[in-house]
Amino acid sequence: MKKNSVQVAILMGSKSDLETVRETTKVLEDFGVSFEIKVLSAHRTPNDVTRYVEKLAVRGIQVVIGAAGMSAALAGTIAAHTVLPVIGIPIETTTLRGLDSLLSTVQMPKGIPVACMSIGKSGAHNAGLLACQILALHDERLMKKMLQCKRDMAEAVRKIKIK
Amino acid sequence: MKKNSVQVAILMGSKSDLETVRETTKVLEDFGVSFEIKVLSAHRTPNDVTRYVEKLAVRGIQVVIGAAGMSAALAGTIAAHTVLPVIGIPIETTTLRGLDSLLSTVQMPKGIPVACMSIGKSGAHNAGLLACQILALHDERLMKKMLQCKRDMAEAVRKIKIK
Amino acid sequence: MKKNSVQVAILMGSKSDLETVRETTKVLEDFGVSFEIKVLSAHRTPNDVTRYVEKLAVRGIQVVIGAAGMSAALAGTIAAHTVLPVIGIPIETTTLRGLDSLLSTVQMPKGIPVACMSIGKSGAHNAGLLACQILALHDERLMKKMLQCKRDMAEAVRKIKIK
Amino acid sequence: MKKNSVQVAILMGSKSDLETVRETTKVLEDFGVSFEIKVLSAHRTPNDVTRYVEKLAVRGIQVVIGAAGMSAALAGTIAAHTVLPVIGIPIETTTLRGLDSLLSTVQMPKGIPVACMSIGKSGAHNAGLLACQILALHDERLMKKMLQCKRDMAEAVRKIKIK
Amino acid sequence: MKKNSVQVAILMGSKSDLETVRETTKVLEDFGVSFEIKVLSAHRTPNDVTRYVEKLAVRGIQVVIGAAGMSAALAGTIAAHTVLPVIGIPIETTTLRGLDSLLSTVQMPKGIPVACMSIGKSGAHNAGLLACQILALHDERLMKKMLQCKRDMAEAVRKIKIK
Amino acid sequence: MKKNSVQVAILMGSKSDLETVRETTKVLEDFGVSFEIKVLSAHRTPNDVTRYVEKLAVRGIQVVIGAAGMSAALAGTIAAHTVLPVIGIPIETTTLRGLDSLLSTVQMPKGIPVACMSIGKSGAHNAGLLACQILALHDERLMKKMLQCKRDMAEAVRKIKIK
Amino acid sequence: MKKNSVQVAILMGSKSDLETVRETTKVLEDFGVSFEIKVLSAHRTPNDVTRYVEKLAVRGIQVVIGAAGMSAALAGTIAAHTVLPVIGIPIETTTLRGLDSLLSTVQMPKGIPVACMSIGKSGAHNAGLLACQILALHDERLMKKMLQCKRDMAEAVRKIKIK
Amino acid sequence: MKKNSVQVAILMGSKSDLETVRETTKVLEDFGVSFEIKVLSAHRTPNDVTRYVEKLAVRGIQVVIGAAGMSAALAGTIAAHTVLPVIGIPIETTTLRGLDSLLSTVQMPKGIPVACMSIGKSGAHNAGLLACQILALHDERLMKKMLQCKRDMAEAVRKIKIK
Repeated sequence: MKKNSVQVAILMGSKSDLETVRETTKVLEDFGVSFEIKVLSAHRTPNDVTRYVEKLAVRGIQVVIGAAGMSAALAGTIAAHTVLPVIGIPIETTTLRGLDSLLSTVQMPKGIPVACMSIGKSGAHNAGLLACQILALHDERLMKKMLQCKRDMAEAVRKIKIK
Repeated sequence: MKKNSVQVAILMGSKSDLETVRETTKVLEDFGVSFEIKVLSAHRTPNDVTRYVEKLAVRGIQVVIGAAGMSAALAGTIAAHTVLPVIGIPIETTTLRGLDSLLSTVQMPKGIPVACMSIGKSGAHNAGLLACQILALHDERLMKKMLQCKRDMAEAVRKIKIK
Repeated sequence: MKKNSVQVAILMGSKSDLETVRETTKVLEDFGVSFEIKVLSAHRTPNDVTRYVEKLAVRGIQVVIGAAGMSAALAGTIAAHTVLPVIGIPIETTTLRGLDSLLSTVQMPKGIPVACMSIGKSGAHNAGLLACQILALHDERLMKKMLQCKRDMAEAVRKIKIK
Repeated sequence: MKKNSVQVAILMGSKSDLETVRETTKVLEDFGVSFEIKVLSAHRTPNDVTRYVEKLAVRGIQVVIGAAGMSAALAGTIAAHTVLPVIGIPIETTTLRGLDSLLSTVQMPKGIPVACMSIGKSGAHNAGLLACQILALHDERLMKKMLQCKRDMAEAVRKIKIK
Repeated sequence: MKKNSVQVAILMGSKSDLETVRETTKVLEDFGVSFEIKVLSAHRTPNDVTRYVEKLAVRGIQVVIGAAGMSAALAGTIAAHTVLPVIGIPIETTTLRGLDSLLSTVQMPKGIPVACMSIGKSGAHNAGLLACQILALHDERLMKKMLQCKRDMAEAVRKIKIK
Repeated sequence: MKKNSVQVAILMGSKSDLETVRETTKVLEDFGVSFEIKVLSAHRTPNDVTRYVEKLAVRGIQVVIGAAGMSAALAGTIAAHTVLPVIGIPIETTTLRGLDSLLSTVQMPKGIPVACMSIGKSGAHNAGLLACQILALHDERLMKKMLQCKRDMAEAVRKIKIK
Repeated sequence: MKKNSVQVAILMGSKSDLETVRETTKVLEDFGVSFEIKVLSAHRTPNDVTRYVEKLAVRGIQVVIGAAGMSAALAGTIAAHTVLPVIGIPIETTTLRGLDSLLSTVQMPKGIPVACMSIGKSGAHNAGLLACQILALHDERLMKKMLQCKRDMAEAVRKIKIK
Repeated sequence: MKKNSVQVAILMGSKSDLETVRETTKVLEDFGVSFEIKVLSAHRTPNDVTRYVEKLAVRGIQVVIGAAGMSAALAGTIAAHTVLPVIGIPIETTTLRGLDSLLSTVQMPKGIPVACMSIGKSGAHNAGLLACQILALHDERLMKKMLQCKRDMAEAVRKIKIK
């Protein structure tokens, strides 16, 4: 991996997914992980997804995150075109509350893994963390930050006072 | 449309889907509609799907049918690459009984329609019929057959005797 | 088909479905496809549905769209009376969020296909597109528009900038 | 009501529903209630359903029972054509276990009531009992039998010995 | 049945159900059917339910309606204590949207029928109609009103104009 | 509590529930807790349930367990008649796989708690354990046995060897 | 049990659960049961949960209540570390409406019982009541209060007047 | 990472999960990835899980896989104790078909990511692949094998002949 290059690529199926995906980018920024973010739709721009994803490995990108709602094919489509680890964020929907996005993202057939997160913003936050955890396996600074973050999270819980 | 050319293309995500898809081909054979059938996976052979689907229109094929289970991206992926009518068959699954396949197939976002059938064999049968109905709009022989088939179906119900 | 005649018939089960169905009519208007739209209920005016649907074919109408919620029998009832392609739009419901409408619309038994769209407005939009795709098979102008629309949709995605 | 005439009409959507519906007819036979039973499909023979149902009232029939599976439109279609009480039996399905039949049968819109029973054989049994309960309101012999049956049911529970 | 006596008894599990149950009473008032309405809870006042229900038959009441939410035991409890026809209204809930109320009301075991309506206000309206349909079997005036109501409902649909 | 008297009462809605409930009795026997077991149905013998449950407290019984399937009103009905702790076991069903039993048992309204276990045999086993845990609060011998059982359970896991 | 010591421990997974858990503490206060309440997360502070729970028994605490949402592991984790009775409150979630919390809390495997309440505030209220019921088995004052509370609850229902 | 040391740790909640987890180990063996496999239950041996997981990082293990069914807390519990990437396999269940396992595994709250796979054997297979993909980011031999495996998978699809 070249220093300062993009480490994580984030794709989302529609601009309306951005509010959710901001949870991911906040985490990556906090951890000092470089990323790029694009709207690319498995259904509306399938060839752009293909072209984009097929170049990720040679660019040194290490983790790809796909966020999509409804029949959420994006993460699965990314995984079809790369052997990089792919993380899926099922976007909440107004009708079926994200159950459709969840089943579409998580129920991947044998051979094409997608690391599915929980529905919506908590899942988007966790997608950022998982990406960092994967990168931290070979980045001591990041690993230390991850451990510190975990301790801080526990400390924050400990500080809560209930009257 | 050239006479005798393939009218309907049927894709399925895995060979195990064939038992279900046979219900589709039986209908097409009964109606004398020419078809071709292929195993092409949105997840395992995405570029093959793209290449195959992008040539369908110039070959004079008029309807495409995609059958897949679990995170059933096939019909949606086909629809992403063509403006031909796409029919989706959600394959029954052992775990979630096809609810995953159904939601993945039917919950298509704005812009990319998939005509979703019922789960499993009844859906596969109906996919064949819908393809024939679309073709029958410009094929008088087929239209007559469709009408006759509908009358026969009613007649078959009428003949049932309950003791 | 006679020029200028109605090409697509849209039925809805209740006037409250109109807000959703407007997504369908906008698409048909954009594509210059002629349509007529009626409130006809499978449950409150069943004989009107029968009478109306049985005349569709002789009037040269080519596609029928049925939108209904809850126990959404409308699309299935239409399909029971015609061999024209029938598209179903499951209307969102406040209680079960459209899961009832979806299962009632999509789970058609063997012999009576309904092309089910996604729940609510995205499904209504796609119903319009699928109707156009079917008509475009024998209408070069429409086919060109469909292809242009697909390119525009991709272009619109490409123009999105994320800061 | 003429003596010895048919009191209850039972329709089912397909011959395969008969195994379930036998639970209904057994109850009616036990209570000495006259009935007729027919396979008539809301989807395959819609006009036969209409014709049949519209004559029920003048024939002195008092209760109608409809049993169907999947997108179970039968009971609702019957209710659309009569003001007699309509009882719906959602048939168990192999894919969604009758959840589709249940929601299609029970989620009737305002204006068209269907008295929905539980899924499958227990529901079919109860459909027979409910028909008898309705008839018993004006049939003292039947009312006495209903009360006796309720006492017998309780007595049967009381006789169960657990070692 | 004594003239002017109460024909229909309506029970609800909690005062908060009243907003929904008002849909039932409006229908009964429109049809001139006499009724009484009480808050009686299967869980909080079980013995009151028992005492109340066991006297219904001797008072000449002919139909009982039970409305309850969540683990909606009320209609089933009523049915346990009477052989009068019992109609159940599953009240909408904020968490599971009435799916809990629906399954609790409709999935009655063999021997104890409850005529389950759709979730919430549409179901409450239909409960009123079904009660009238049952009474109308032996009340010509009511039967005529039911038929007129059905015609009016159809007429109301026919008058809807879509611009 | 009198020595040797019954400590736990187990009710089940139907004899067919016995296979599941045997998991509960095995636990109670292992812990040397005295119990009695009866088939009493909230729907078929409601007054027997009332009479039986209302005497439990004076008999010194301390925990009541109710097992039922489908619209599983039994545990809730028991809880309506006693302030003893009530444990509910949702029995697995063939159609909705126990989802109906679960929601009927667990979704109790404010004021009437039922301690709901998991669906089927694991829940029945745990019902036995929870009863013992409650009794163990004032029974040192039982508390020691509970702690030993927990250690044994851990030990059993530790002994598993995977080749 | 030492007089005036803490009798019930309440844990919640996040501070946002407090609004729901206040329903539990109100009940305990009404019944004069002493309790302590803490935010301790099975996922963010697992070792704190372990340490805290392992000391509960020696401190004379008799009932533990765990409230958590989403993948609600808290109650199960508590139950893993103690043989005291554990009550679980599934917190309502915005996406899956608490179905995730419910299944995570209730579907405990063989050996580790959790007494699951209904989703959200009604469940939190009932958790308080169940804790009191367990304590009341050996506290006459509390038992009398429980019985009075049950009578008051019934009386409150009886006082409701419907105009 | 030391050469020849264990790279992947696999935990499962019960020995009965082994049949599913064998799909994971087959993949790891095929890719020449070293692993160890243990039965450790979040509910029955929580402290063993803690102790085991807290040592994983210092042992140079890089990925942890947790497989569990029902209220599947195992993967989440692992993730609570480590910042290594954690993959969750929801085990199929006989009652709710793995929907309980899925929601328990995937719906992780903010801060504690679990990479959830599909239910059952396909998910177990994919867990193995995702572990390899993560390791392959810094293991050229493995990356080449991953790419070859992806090509082979595509080739296998291409070789399928449908008669």
